[in-house]
Amino acid sequence: MSKQNVILLHGAGIITVDPEERVYLNGAILIEGDRISAIGKSDLLVAEYGSRADEVVNLEGHWILPGLINTHVHTSQQLGRGIADDVDLLTWLHERIWPYESEMSEEDSYISTLLCGIELIHSGVTCFAEAGGQHVSGMAKAVEKLGIRACLARSTMNTGEGLPALWAQETTETCIKVQEDLFTRFNGSADDRIRIWFGLRQILNATDDLLMRTKEAAAKCNTGIHMHVAEIPYENEFVTQSRGVEHGTVTYLNKIGLLGQNLLAAHSVWVSPSEVEMMGQAGVKVSHCPAAAMRMLGFAPITEMLSAGVCVSLGTDGAPSNNRMSLVDEMYLASLINKGKVVFDRGTTDPTALPAETVLKMATINGARTVLQSHQIGSLQVGKKADLIIINPHKWTMLPLHDPISNIVYCMRTENIVSVMCNGHWIMRDNKILTVDEESVIAKAKEAAAKLIKRAQIQLPERGNVIR
Amino acid sequence: MSKQNVILLHGAGIITVDPEERVYLNGAILIEGDRISAIGKSDLLVAEYGSRADEVVNLEGHWILPGLINTHVHTSQQLGRGIADDVDLLTWLHERIWPYESEMSEEDSYISTLLCGIELIHSGVTCFAEAGGQHVSGMAKAVEKLGIRACLARSTMNTGEGLPALWAQETTETCIKVQEDLFTRFNGSADDRIRIWFGLRQILNATDDLLMRTKEAAAKCNTGIHMHVAEIPYENEFVTQSRGVEHGTVTYLNKIGLLGQNLLAAHSVWVSPSEVEMMGQAGVKVSHCPAAAMRMLGFAPITEMLSAGVCVSLGTDGAPSNNRMSLVDEMYLASLINKGKVVFDRGTTDPTALPAETVLKMATINGARTVLQSHQIGSLQVGKKADLIIINPHKWTMLPLHDPISNIVYCMRTENIVSVMCNGHWIMRDNKILTVDEESVIAKAKEAAAKLIKRAQIQLPERGNVIR
Repeated sequence: MSKQNVILLHGAGIITVDPEERVYLNGAILIEGDRISAIGKSDLLVAEYGSRADEVVNLEGHWILPGLINTHVHTSQQLGRGIADDVDLLTWLHERIWPYESEMSEEDSYISTLLCGIELIHSGVTCFAEAGGQHVSGMAKAVEKLGIRACLARSTMNTGEGLPALWAQETTETCIKVQEDLFTRFNGSADDRIRIWFGLRQILNATDDLLMRTKEAAAKCNTGIHMHVAEIPYENEFVTQSRGVEHGTVTYLNKIGLLGQNLLAAHSVWVSPSEVEMMGQAGVKVSHCPAAAMRMLGFAPITEMLSAGVCVSLGTDGAPSNNRMSLVDEMYLASLINKGKVVFDRGTTDPTALPAETVLKMATINGARTVLQSHQIGSLQVGKKADLIIINPHKWTMLPLHDPISNIVYCMRTENIVSVMCNGHWIMRDNKILTVDEESVIAKAKEAAAKLIKRAQIQLPERGNVIR
Repeated sequence: MSKQNVILLHGAGIITVDPEERVYLNGAILIEGDRISAIGKSDLLVAEYGSRADEVVNLEGHWILPGLINTHVHTSQQLGRGIADDVDLLTWLHERIWPYESEMSEEDSYISTLLCGIELIHSGVTCFAEAGGQHVSGMAKAVEKLGIRACLARSTMNTGEGLPALWAQETTETCIKVQEDLFTRFNGSADDRIRIWFGLRQILNATDDLLMRTKEAAAKCNTGIHMHVAEIPYENEFVTQSRGVEHGTVTYLNKIGLLGQNLLAAHSVWVSPSEVEMMGQAGVKVSHCPAAAMRMLGFAPITEMLSAGVCVSLGTDGAPSNNRMSLVDEMYLASLINKGKVVFDRGTTDPTALPAETVLKMATINGARTVLQSHQIGSLQVGKKADLIIINPHKWTMLPLHDPISNIVYCMRTENIVSVMCNGHWIMRDNKILTVDEESVIAKAKEAAAKLIKRAQIQLPERGNVIR
């Protein structure tokens, strides 16, 4: 930790996303060390703290928001962006993603997470939840360097057809032991920016024993579980037949007590109305990934979940599923898709569904609740960690600014996000990332990606009539 | 016209979108005046033309594509971005858009089109089709200055409930006369970059007389008709009842002979399978606007249209409907939405639907066919106009580049589009627009937008608890 820096940001619009939904048109924030120590009208804060701050930043014309939280990211898949586009789900998994992931080295994972982190920071993300990938040690090293916050999880499987040899042999015992060791080694590291979670790839790749042992281990460590839930109808059919429950994964997880406050259920597309109720009652957290869902899975009942009190946040999923890893785009998509999907039931879309302020909450405070850290991130409030982003709306992308919150959700592009602070430290300023050298990461990533694809023997068909 | 400049672009990847779907990994293009005079392997062209070109540009690491074509844009609505978000369709139209549009001055339309044009150029658009707006003269002035290509149309209505007084009085005679005058005055102007089309707002706002007179007038001028078609189920019900046909607008337009080669049917969401067949047989052109459709209208049967031989292109619609006016984003959305929508029929999405190369064609050559100019734009071929864009993929947004065409469609962001040429002239280089001063347009647009909203007495509810 560096010294207790005092930073005063003033003259900006501030969207706090606090419980009172305060929006300052001309506000200021005082940051001391890693925390927000005052927030209010600009003139008052400047008068009171202007002289004793180490850094005073005039942000006239800018907006300050809480850092965005991306609750479902496969950081180790960033080097595989574009390896599995326009192919069916089985080809995607068996011929592209599994060969790719099983050939990853720790160094690949480190570079992949750095490259992914650059995209996350540019898109205003200060905290993410890793969906479960390869080599958590590599990810942790990258997160420490990037300066952002993360809940890291290991891709964990102990059963399933067609698994690469490397993974098929893993016992439940090993699955749990490896993750407990990771917890001991990395949880709370990097100034407490890193948390270790338990991973469950999905129910098709987990025995009952693994499910229950994961639940116990996560409870013992007082941490979360990140799992893909109810992704495709086949998953529900499989669970219904093999586990003898009425509907599917959610019903089964509820039955065995895994559906709890600390479960981050990614996607949750194929859930019945009664399962939505179960999720609300159990306090489970859902990561809605609009782009990946549209491409691979389907339409999750997001408005129904929100009505049932389920905490729904936003995620990008991994680069071979999306392919943009930008929460800025996911905000836009979440609104569009959830306005549109009711057309099948009603004959008309609902342009009032998921209004901008709801989407913004999903990307901030709901994200914080999803990663079990809403006591310290997700909104701009005194006592919370100083995780924030600065937006310059005065570009062709966002003008005119008749309705600022709406424009932030529906028009903003990554280039409008000019600066990012995490844990009281600037990690991007004036569109330049300060913690890593982008050019050098990009050069390393290109090389590592080419080698990895070759090693995994992934061959992509050419598009068009290629002339060399 | 300036002198016959000879420009050689070399060392780039080139996606020609020509009938042979040629993709040069290391290609070159020679431009003489406003046309492409050679295209081929880089070393050959450099040897043959390198010494006599006025400008030789080494584009190593870049990609060259045909300029994108946005086939449904309300340029006069750009100043109204954000005035009608998260409200139902009637509020959108009667309380926000109509008051806004009916209060526009010619100067407003000029400024609005300039602001919109800046967004279009940054998103790689070299040609657009105006959906029908206010003050075509203002638009034409802006297009001439911007340096892009456009098919301009006037918003034309002669019937309909709740129309502002200004429009309700217009006779069919006036509607046609005004447009014929615009045709005489502006068609072929700005070095033939400007074409004048006839506009029909939608069937709910057009008498049979106006429909037929428009058809005749467009035929006489040998130009196109731009019309919103089959937007909502109510429209079809209205047509079925008032015009006594079986399904709706498309069936009726077919019956009266308006469904032809020169009809640009925007949206076309609510069309039956037999209407899709009619559209294919008639050679009608469809502008698919994924974002606006998701938000306001529903899912058009795009894959079905393409199978039936309908020429489908892409549009952004207007800023109060979208709100991003970026064809780059529409390519991404078109693919996602059309992969996802079949989930309601099949229980699974179709990740193979609308592959990247198809989407790219929709944004280029199909766009050119839609605006009736495929003989001279829409692909990079000898003899065609030099309308092209240059992409720098070596940024965090697009890497790694395992599958370039896919990354261009699914990952590219506007910041990757570095240069744009239209009609043989550079209109943007290194992300800087050369034809207008962005800062000055933005300043004027802010002022004009604020005054216009005030004049139209549009009041937006505040979001959140605003503290001044």
